[in-house]
Amino acid sequence: MSAAVGAGADKQSADEQGVTGPKGFRAAGVAAGLKTSGLDVALVVNDGPRAAAAGVFTANRVKAAPVLWSQQVLRAGQVRAVVLNSGGANACTGPKGFQDTHATAEHVAAALGGIGAGDVAVCSTGLIGELLPMQKLLLGVDAAASALVADGGPAAAEAIMTTDTRPKTVVVGKDGWSVGGMAKGAGMLAPGMATMLSVLTTDAVAEPAVLDAALRAATRVSFDRIDSDGCMSTNDTVLLLASGASGVEPTAEELAAAITAACHDLAQQLLADAEGATKEAAIEVVGAASEDDAVEVGRAVARNNLVKTALFGNDPNWGRILAAVGTTAAAFEPDALDVSVNGVWVCKGGAAAEDRSSVDLSGRAVTIRIDLHAGTDEATIWTNDLSHGYVHENSAYST
Amino acid sequence: MSAAVGAGADKQSADEQGVTGPKGFRAAGVAAGLKTSGLDVALVVNDGPRAAAAGVFTANRVKAAPVLWSQQVLRAGQVRAVVLNSGGANACTGPKGFQDTHATAEHVAAALGGIGAGDVAVCSTGLIGELLPMQKLLLGVDAAASALVADGGPAAAEAIMTTDTRPKTVVVGKDGWSVGGMAKGAGMLAPGMATMLSVLTTDAVAEPAVLDAALRAATRVSFDRIDSDGCMSTNDTVLLLASGASGVEPTAEELAAAITAACHDLAQQLLADAEGATKEAAIEVVGAASEDDAVEVGRAVARNNLVKTALFGNDPNWGRILAAVGTTAAAFEPDALDVSVNGVWVCKGGAAAEDRSSVDLSGRAVTIRIDLHAGTDEATIWTNDLSHGYVHENSAYST
Repeated sequence: MSAAVGAGADKQSADEQGVTGPKGFRAAGVAAGLKTSGLDVALVVNDGPRAAAAGVFTANRVKAAPVLWSQQVLRAGQVRAVVLNSGGANACTGPKGFQDTHATAEHVAAALGGIGAGDVAVCSTGLIGELLPMQKLLLGVDAAASALVADGGPAAAEAIMTTDTRPKTVVVGKDGWSVGGMAKGAGMLAPGMATMLSVLTTDAVAEPAVLDAALRAATRVSFDRIDSDGCMSTNDTVLLLASGASGVEPTAEELAAAITAACHDLAQQLLADAEGATKEAAIEVVGAASEDDAVEVGRAVARNNLVKTALFGNDPNWGRILAAVGTTAAAFEPDALDVSVNGVWVCKGGAAAEDRSSVDLSGRAVTIRIDLHAGTDEATIWTNDLSHGYVHENSAYST
Repeated sequence: MSAAVGAGADKQSADEQGVTGPKGFRAAGVAAGLKTSGLDVALVVNDGPRAAAAGVFTANRVKAAPVLWSQQVLRAGQVRAVVLNSGGANACTGPKGFQDTHATAEHVAAALGGIGAGDVAVCSTGLIGELLPMQKLLLGVDAAASALVADGGPAAAEAIMTTDTRPKTVVVGKDGWSVGGMAKGAGMLAPGMATMLSVLTTDAVAEPAVLDAALRAATRVSFDRIDSDGCMSTNDTVLLLASGASGVEPTAEELAAAITAACHDLAQQLLADAEGATKEAAIEVVGAASEDDAVEVGRAVARNNLVKTALFGNDPNWGRILAAVGTTAAAFEPDALDVSVNGVWVCKGGAAAEDRSSVDLSGRAVTIRIDLHAGTDEATIWTNDLSHGYVHENSAYST
C-alpha cells in the first residue's frame, strides 16, 4: 500500500525510517530496564516549524492514565513531543498512575526545554494494573532526550514493541512531502478505537482540524477494521503530528489519502504479526444495505471462535460462517446468502453449492466473501485465526 | 440443584431417567448409522392424557429446517412426539432440508399411529450444511418407534450426543409430580436462545400458556446465561411436554421453579462437558443499575478471549477483566470497579488491591465477582476457559 520514496532496498530502508521519514522530526529509542531486555522507551519530537496534531483513542471506558492525559493534551491541537514506553500499560493504576503520567510529561518537557508538559503526549503499553517503575522510566527519558537523532525512527519503533516479533514502520512519499509512521500491537487488537499504539508524522502543512478529520477517516477504514481477537485495549492511541517542514500544504483529500495508506499499511503489519496467528483473513462483505451492515456482519464473522478455529484447521466450514452472520441485525434473507472461501462459492442461496474440497486453505492469506444480496454497500474486516499459538501466548502473558 | 426422587445410587438412577422420569412418557434411542458409531436417533412420546407443550428456539436468524418446522408445531401448544437426531444439523440445506424435516415428522406420525405430523416436533444436531441421509433416518425412526419403553430416557439422552462425552439428564421430583429432562451440547453454547437441544417433560397438569411462561422464565436464567464460546447455534431448541399423568396441577410458580431447577442442572452439565474446557467459571456481576447491565457485563467478560486464555493459564489477570467491562454500556465509573477472583479482591476502586499471588486457580471451578457499585441488581453468567483442547476439537470438527 505504501508508495515508497525509493524502490527495492531503498524502499525498505525508507519505510524503516517511520516517524523520522518526514522532515522536521527527531526520534530515539533506549533501554531503560522496564522490560527484561531490549529497548523500551521511545521519544518522538516535532521540531516544527509547526506543531499541529490530532489523536484517536480507545473507545474502552476503562482508559489508561496516559490515554486520559493525552486526550487532554490533544484538545489544544498541538503536540511537540510524544514519549512512549513498553513494559507497562499504566492502566487501572488509580490516581498514582495518572500522577506518574503527568510527571513523565513534565520530565520530557524539562529535558527538551522550551516546551511545557501540555505539549507532551504520553503512551504506555504492557501489562495492565501495575505502576510503572518511575525512576527507571525518567532515567530512560533523559537518555532518550540525549539520543534524539533525525534518523531515530527505527529505534523508536523497536522500543514500543511488546509481544511483537518485529517493529512496524511505514513511509508514504508524496510530491515534496510525506507521511511516516510506526505502530505496535500483536494482541488485544479490536475495533472501536485505533490500535495499540501508533504515531504518524507528516511534514505537510495542515491545521489541527484538517489533521483530525484525516486521521479519523483513516483509522475508521484501517485500524478500526482489523479485529484480531475481539479484545479492545485500555491504551489504544493513534497520534498524528505535522511539522510543516516541507512547506507544502496538500489538499485535505490528498492528506487523508496518504494517511489512510500509511494506516492501512501499518494495520496489515499488525495483523501479520498477531500473536500465534497462522492466517490473515479478509472478511469481505458485499451486497449490504449499508456500510454499517457490512461492518457488523464482517465483525461477527471475524470474532466467531468457531470460524477462527476452522481457519486454523484449514477447514472451509461455511456453516459456521452462516451461523455467525445469523447473529447480526443486518438486512438479509437467510436463503439468499452466498459465501465464497478463497474464490470457491461453497454456499449459494443459504445452502451448499460448489464442492468445499476444492477450497485451498494451505496459505496464510484467506479471503472470505459474503454476499448479503441486500444492497450495494460493502466493507472488509481483517482478522486472524484462533490457534494453539494464541492460546499459548495469552495463557502465559502475565505470569 | 435437582431435588432428587431418591438419594445416593437411587438419586443417580432416578436422574438418569431424564425424560421418562415423569409419568406418561416413553422414549427410545437407536443407532441408525447417521454417526460413524453409537446411538443417533431418539424418540420421545407423550402418552398423555394431555399433550400441552411449549418451546424456546435459537435467536439466530439462520435457523435450521427442524427449528422452522418445530416453531410451527409449537404454535398450537400441543406436541405428541419429539424425534431427534445427531449426526447432522439439517441447517443451511434449503427447501430440500425442510422437506426432509416434514417427511420425518410424517413418518413418525405414521409409525406411532393416531397422530398427525403437526403433533411431531423435530430436532437435529451435527454438522451444518449437509442434507441428512433420509433412508437411514427413516429406518431409524421405525426402529425407535418399535423400541419405545417407559424407561427409555437414558437411551434417548445418549442418542442426541455429538461431541458430548456423556449424556445429560435430570429429574426434579416434587410432591406427586416431577420434571424430567435431557440435553446435549458441548460447543456453540451461547445465549439469546436456549442451548443446543433439550427436551423437558412433566406429568403435571398445565395449560400451554403456563408452560410457555414457565419455560421462558427458566431458560432466561439458565441456558441463556451459559456462554461457553460466544457462538450461537442454528439449531438450539428447548421443548417442554406436559402429560398431565400425575393428575396434579401445581401453581404456575411451583411449576416454574421446578422447570428452572431442571434447566439450571442441565445447563451446568453442559458447561462441565464443554469442548476442551479445563475450567467452569461463574462471572457474578453485582451492584448493577439493572439486571440487563449485569448480564451485559457478565457476557462481555465471559466472551473475552484474553480473559478466557488467562483462566486456562491459571492467571488472575484482572486487568483483562476490567478491559472487558470497559467495552460495555453498563452504568459504572471505571475508578469504582471492584473485582475478586476466587474470593481474593485483586482490584478495588479500579486499581490493584489484594495480592494476586494469593489467588488459587488450581481447581476447575472459578468465581469472578465484579462489583459495579452502580445499584443493587445482579446476574451470573457461566463460561469456560479457552484452551488448547477447544482449539484442537474445533479446528478438526468437520474435516
